[in-house]
Amino acid sequence: MADPKHPVVKPFLLTRSLQPENQETPIQFIENDIIQNHLFYRRNHFSYPKLTYSNFFLPIIGLVTKPMLLSMQTILQLPSKSLEIVLECSGNKRSFFEPIVFGEQWEKGAISQGIWKGVPLRTLLEISGIKKGAKEVIVEGYDFGKRTDLDKNFAYARSLPLEKALHSDTIIAYEYNHKPIPFKHGYPLRLIVPQWYGMASVKWIKQISIIDSHFTGPYQSIDYMYYPNHFNDNGAQPVTTMNVNSTIQKPLNLKRLNTGKHEIKGIAWTGKGFITKVEISTDHGFTWSNAKVDDTNPSYKWISWSYEWNVMEKGDFTILSKATDSYGQTQPSEANWNRNGYGYNAFDKIKVKIE
Amino acid sequence: MADPKHPVVKPFLLTRSLQPENQETPIQFIENDIIQNHLFYRRNHFSYPKLTYSNFFLPIIGLVTKPMLLSMQTILQLPSKSLEIVLECSGNKRSFFEPIVFGEQWEKGAISQGIWKGVPLRTLLEISGIKKGAKEVIVEGYDFGKRTDLDKNFAYARSLPLEKALHSDTIIAYEYNHKPIPFKHGYPLRLIVPQWYGMASVKWIKQISIIDSHFTGPYQSIDYMYYPNHFNDNGAQPVTTMNVNSTIQKPLNLKRLNTGKHEIKGIAWTGKGFITKVEISTDHGFTWSNAKVDDTNPSYKWISWSYEWNVMEKGDFTILSKATDSYGQTQPSEANWNRNGYGYNAFDKIKVKIE
Repeated sequence: MADPKHPVVKPFLLTRSLQPENQETPIQFIENDIIQNHLFYRRNHFSYPKLTYSNFFLPIIGLVTKPMLLSMQTILQLPSKSLEIVLECSGNKRSFFEPIVFGEQWEKGAISQGIWKGVPLRTLLEISGIKKGAKEVIVEGYDFGKRTDLDKNFAYARSLPLEKALHSDTIIAYEYNHKPIPFKHGYPLRLIVPQWYGMASVKWIKQISIIDSHFTGPYQSIDYMYYPNHFNDNGAQPVTTMNVNSTIQKPLNLKRLNTGKHEIKGIAWTGKGFITKVEISTDHGFTWSNAKVDDTNPSYKWISWSYEWNVMEKGDFTILSKATDSYGQTQPSEANWNRNGYGYNAFDKIKVKIE
Repeated sequence: MADPKHPVVKPFLLTRSLQPENQETPIQFIENDIIQNHLFYRRNHFSYPKLTYSNFFLPIIGLVTKPMLLSMQTILQLPSKSLEIVLECSGNKRSFFEPIVFGEQWEKGAISQGIWKGVPLRTLLEISGIKKGAKEVIVEGYDFGKRTDLDKNFAYARSLPLEKALHSDTIIAYEYNHKPIPFKHGYPLRLIVPQWYGMASVKWIKQISIIDSHFTGPYQSIDYMYYPNHFNDNGAQPVTTMNVNSTIQKPLNLKRLNTGKHEIKGIAWTGKGFITKVEISTDHGFTWSNAKVDDTNPSYKWISWSYEWNVMEKGDFTILSKATDSYGQTQPSEANWNRNGYGYNAFDKIKVKIE
C-alpha cells in the first residue's frame, strides 16, 4: 500500500459564473501582498477574445497629430515604470447590499494586488501628439459581445478624461508580477488606472483613440454608473475612484472560538490618498480601538492591519473594521445603496461565537 | 509573441476554511452525475491524520465471538458491491438558516455523488460473530484533535445501531469511482452509510467495535444533534437520514436575463425512498408546475430535473423548487431551524431579473 501523501491544503478561486468567467480571489485566505496569477480574481463581460498575435500592432488614432500603429517591440523599448497597485472591481462586496441588487454576487474577493509594469499612456500620447479640443481618451478591448438590455454587439470600451489619461501612473502594462500579463488578465496589453475601480483598467487593448466629446458606450453610460434610485436614473454619477474600505480576513465569519486571545487581521485600501487609520469594534460600534497598521504609505497598495483581541466572556460577538484615509474619508456604517451595486464600503462586519 | 492560449474555464472548490480543510463542491456548475475527486467537497473536523500504511490492519473488537485484525489483502478478497450514492453533509445549506447559526457556512455544495465499492460491514461482522447483547457498532477514524468546547483530544468516532450496521448496503469502502479512495476522502477504508447524512460515513477507519450500550462520543451526543431551541437542549434528536431536498443549479441566483425561454435545472434527492416529483414555482409558490424528471429510480442517487420557463414579462422573479419522495415527504417552505444548523431542506430559492 502507498505511503500517505502529505495532503496539500490550499484555497481556490471562488466561482461566480463560468460564461463569462467571473471568479473571485479567496481573500480571507491570502497571506501575501502579491496575488499570484492563479488566485487573481477574474472578471469578464464576455467570452475570452480570440486573438492572433502574430501581427500585433496598437493603433493610436483620433485627435492626434500623428496617427500611429505601435509594434510591441516599440512599446517594450520605451521608458517603463512598475507599480504595485490594488485592483478592485467596483462590484466587490455587492452581495452585502440591502435591499439586494442583481448582477454577479461578489463577496469580498473581487480585489487583488500585484506589480504592473508598462509604459505611461502619457508617453504614447506625447509621441502621437494631442490635437486641440481633445477631451477624452477611449481605450477599447478585444472583448465584445451581446448585452441583455440592448440588441447589438458591443466591444468593451471605456474613456478616461484627458487629465487622468495623462497622469504619469496611468500605464499601458505588459507585465504582471515580472512576467507577461496572463492571458485572462489582458495579454498582451492592459490599461492600468491606479486609484480607480477595475472597470477602468481595460484588458486586451485593441485601440486607443482621442475624442473631443464625452464617450457614451454602454460600459460607461449604462453600466458603471451609481443610480441612487430603484426606478429612475435621477442623480446618476459615474463610478471612478475607489472608496476607502477594509476587509477582515481573520477570524472567519460565523466561526466558533475559545475564550482567550485571538488575532483579528485584514487589509485596508483607498483610491485617493492613503490609509491613515484602521479601527476595530467588538461591541457593535459603541467603542473602537486602533488596529496595528503595518505601514501607512502614500502608495497604491493596500495595507495590512491586525488587532489582538482578548475575550474572556462567552457569547456571540460582532466584529467591525473601519478604515480612514489621508483625505479624511472614513467607511460609513451603511453603504450608499445604488441600483447596480457598486462601491460598497460599509464597515466590514463578521460575527463569531465564543464558547 | 506567443499565440493565444485557448483559455480553460472551469469551476473550483469553494473554500470555507483551511484549518481544518472544508471546501464545498461548486454544485451549480456541475453537469455530471459523478463528481470527480478534485471537485468532491472536503469536510474535516481536524487536520488530516498522519498514517503509515506499511502495516495496515483493521481491528474488529468488542462484543464479537472472534476479535480480528483484518489485512487489506483479506478485505479485498471478500465479496464486494458497488453503489452510486449521494453523500450530503448534514450542514449543507447551513448558511440559509434564519436566524443565522454558527459553524461552517456551507451554501449548496456540501453534497457529492460517486461510486463507492467495498465490503458490506455485515460480511465482516458475520466473520467476527456478534455476541448477545450487542447494540451498536462504533466506527472510529484516524483523525483526532481538540474541540473548542471540551479540553481533551477526541478521535472522530460514530456508532450505528445494529440494524443499520447490518444493512447490506452499509459498506466498508476501498474504492471511489473505480480507484482507491483519495486520501482526503478516507483512504484506505471509509465507512459508507447510504441514506444517512455524511457524518455517519467515517473516513480513515482505524477500528470497529461492538458495544452493548449507546455510544456517547461528542460527535454523536453533542454535535450532529438537532437542538430546536436557542438556549437549552430540550427536544434534541440525533441527525440520521437525509431530508428530501432539491437544488436549483441554473439560472444562477440574482442573474439578469432576457425575456424568452430559459432552462431551469437542478438536482433532487432524499434519504429514505426515492424522488417521485419536482415542482417549480415562478410566482412565490402560488402556482407550481412539474419539472421534467430524468429518471425516478429507487436508488441512492440524486435525480436531475429541468423545466422550460417561458417568460415574456420584465421584472424581478423568485424561482422555487420543491421535491417530493416516495414516502410522501415534501420540502417545507421553511426549514426546521435548529441551533447547530443541520438538515436544511426548505424549498430551494433563487431570484432573477428579466430585462
